[in-house]
Amino acid sequence: MFSAVEVIRTKRDRGRLSTEQIRWVIDAYTRGEVADEQMSALAMAILLNGADDREISDWTAAMIDSGDRLDLGRVGKPTVDKHSTGGVGDKITLPLAPLVASFGVAVPQLSGRGLGHTGGTLDKLETIPGFRTNLTVDEFIDHLANPGAVVCAASERLAPADRRLYALRDVTGTVEAIPLIASSIMSKKIAEGTQGLVLDVKVGSGAFMKDLRSARRLAETMVRLGNSHGVRCTALLTDMSTPLGRTAGNALEVAESVEVLAGGGPSDVVELTVALAAEMLALAGMPDADPAAALADGRAMDAWRAMVTAQGGDPDAALPRAPETDEVLADRDGVVTSMDAYAVGVAAWRLGAGRARQGEAVSAGAGVEIVATVGETVRAGQPLLRLHADDTSRFAVAREKLTDAVEIGNSFDKRHLIMERID
Amino acid sequence: MFSAVEVIRTKRDRGRLSTEQIRWVIDAYTRGEVADEQMSALAMAILLNGADDREISDWTAAMIDSGDRLDLGRVGKPTVDKHSTGGVGDKITLPLAPLVASFGVAVPQLSGRGLGHTGGTLDKLETIPGFRTNLTVDEFIDHLANPGAVVCAASERLAPADRRLYALRDVTGTVEAIPLIASSIMSKKIAEGTQGLVLDVKVGSGAFMKDLRSARRLAETMVRLGNSHGVRCTALLTDMSTPLGRTAGNALEVAESVEVLAGGGPSDVVELTVALAAEMLALAGMPDADPAAALADGRAMDAWRAMVTAQGGDPDAALPRAPETDEVLADRDGVVTSMDAYAVGVAAWRLGAGRARQGEAVSAGAGVEIVATVGETVRAGQPLLRLHADDTSRFAVAREKLTDAVEIGNSFDKRHLIMERID
Repeated sequence: MFSAVEVIRTKRDRGRLSTEQIRWVIDAYTRGEVADEQMSALAMAILLNGADDREISDWTAAMIDSGDRLDLGRVGKPTVDKHSTGGVGDKITLPLAPLVASFGVAVPQLSGRGLGHTGGTLDKLETIPGFRTNLTVDEFIDHLANPGAVVCAASERLAPADRRLYALRDVTGTVEAIPLIASSIMSKKIAEGTQGLVLDVKVGSGAFMKDLRSARRLAETMVRLGNSHGVRCTALLTDMSTPLGRTAGNALEVAESVEVLAGGGPSDVVELTVALAAEMLALAGMPDADPAAALADGRAMDAWRAMVTAQGGDPDAALPRAPETDEVLADRDGVVTSMDAYAVGVAAWRLGAGRARQGEAVSAGAGVEIVATVGETVRAGQPLLRLHADDTSRFAVAREKLTDAVEIGNSFDKRHLIMERID
Repeated sequence: MFSAVEVIRTKRDRGRLSTEQIRWVIDAYTRGEVADEQMSALAMAILLNGADDREISDWTAAMIDSGDRLDLGRVGKPTVDKHSTGGVGDKITLPLAPLVASFGVAVPQLSGRGLGHTGGTLDKLETIPGFRTNLTVDEFIDHLANPGAVVCAASERLAPADRRLYALRDVTGTVEAIPLIASSIMSKKIAEGTQGLVLDVKVGSGAFMKDLRSARRLAETMVRLGNSHGVRCTALLTDMSTPLGRTAGNALEVAESVEVLAGGGPSDVVELTVALAAEMLALAGMPDADPAAALADGRAMDAWRAMVTAQGGDPDAALPRAPETDEVLADRDGVVTSMDAYAVGVAAWRLGAGRARQGEAVSAGAGVEIVATVGETVRAGQPLLRLHADDTSRFAVAREKLTDAVEIGNSFDKRHLIMERID
């Protein structure tokens, strides 16, 4: 016999939760026997008092066991997934999944929607006319066999305890707990059945983890967790103090991704896409594969068109554009020394690209286009940012968020996009 | 504009809550705009990260402002109340309120019901045939004028935010937070309108505060809080490792209280009643009053009879008795060296004297009678405890709780009942 109050007290008083306590509390919460107000108190106690590897592993296993676990055995190819902890302008999944699939690897990319200042991969792909993100489990496995890359929503039967707990954490100030972030991400990835997983852990103002130390702890925790549950994992810690690429917004990011797949695009997006692809291909047994070549010679673009077509989309259709634009201008001559990722993300959200609550609609065309990025020279009066919205009334709030977001000075430090590798 | 998540994050990240944040969150919680799961996360963050005097004072003020504040001006006497943080066998209110009233002081004793291993004053008094604990505000004030002592339930309009928050803390493992205990107790006492207040802060196994250090912190916090809100306060820290007196149970404790009012009764109950009365009388401007004399000469008993009669009770009626008894016997010769208050409290609860949840009925006659207490010599086979219950099926569970509750040895340390005084 367990009681929620005793489980909460154990963690509150800095004790270790037993395997049995964790299994019981997750199961009872999923069944509704443990109430939201009890789980939120426990989540706060975990956030403040921590949890060790054994507890995190048990918590993850209990969340997996709250639902189904997929068997990707009949795909007949190595399976490798990627997960990013989320940032501003992070469209990497879009070029990355087809790029890796072009090497004969299956990429089971179950993705989410945007919340707050970070965008969501599904919101971006749904701006492509006809694109379906809700696939059945059978469709998901069929598409992994051919064309190989699939980007779709997770089934409601994968880790349903996590679904409920995530919504609770979002409204109770308990998102930023490393044990809870790690088990939330990894329970879904392990349940999904992938053999390998590359983690892109973001660090900086636009990320959950604001500093390198906590990002490293999160990455190490997730890598250990994956390895102990039979999923081979590596992680890159990457910079999210500056937005990735030159766009933050749904259709804007799809267009930028297509540029990368065509062999062009912003150098930081290309660099990170190639680095993550190399990690994924190494986990799939191809340490010597050359992903940059596949971007240059059109193989990745072919895989993209095959993926979009397989999911009902038209790769040749024009993307939606927001009808209204506005510009933020440089107020002096100089070089752009910094651009705050968080501020740009909030501005894109305010322009209509994001949502404050789960279930809200987002604008396809809204967002921020970065005209002059860090390291580039500007003259007073030249545009720094171009804002896109469906309605001019959005611009004032977005501009307010951007007041101090861009600094212009005389010199800047070169960005170290890929900060560390952990395996 | 405030958001619950921002308030939670402030405390989670060890910040100080502003006066405005506290006023908003208590008001919004009372209105239902802040959800239980948000308040429980905030309560856990306060429990683990603490709150300073300014925050506790603001929290208390906000809870007072969630309801009415009584004006006892027309009572026409000094008003002094007593609050105990709760223990096993703590029937002190019963002899104390009439004793102090016998000196012409009004004692506005708003009391509660038992929960878990601690008994409740209202449950005890309701075993007196006819006794009413639900008085209107007008009756309450009239009885303060004459006969002077009133022991009744608090109006639902006194600190309603505390009522809701206390029920939430009870199921979320957030009871044991000094800022929340202090503001819960003091918001009701300040709203009640008393001029003076003596706090009996219990220390030991049968109390919330298990050690002297945390009990001292709680007492100091409450005394400062009362003084800063215009209620003169003193506190005694008193031992609750051993039960108070020789009974734990509703009618059993009334009978023991009547013995004290008749000039007899267990020495520890008499000692604490007289000490608390002296503190209360000092706050009422009578530092030289002699409460022991009023117990000896029948004035306190007269005041008791007047109070019981005023509240509809019959002071001469026989008290209910439980039909079944059982005994716990000494297993060796020796002296009783310790008797665990918590175990005795849980046993009384299991026998039917207490409740697991608010709203449950309790037995009038059930409880534990202590036949041989600490310091007394026993022979193997003599009774140590006598158990009373309405039903013999209760005895097995109660006996189980008492297995290691009483120690018999060769020597014992004299109990220091009153450990410290704080003002």
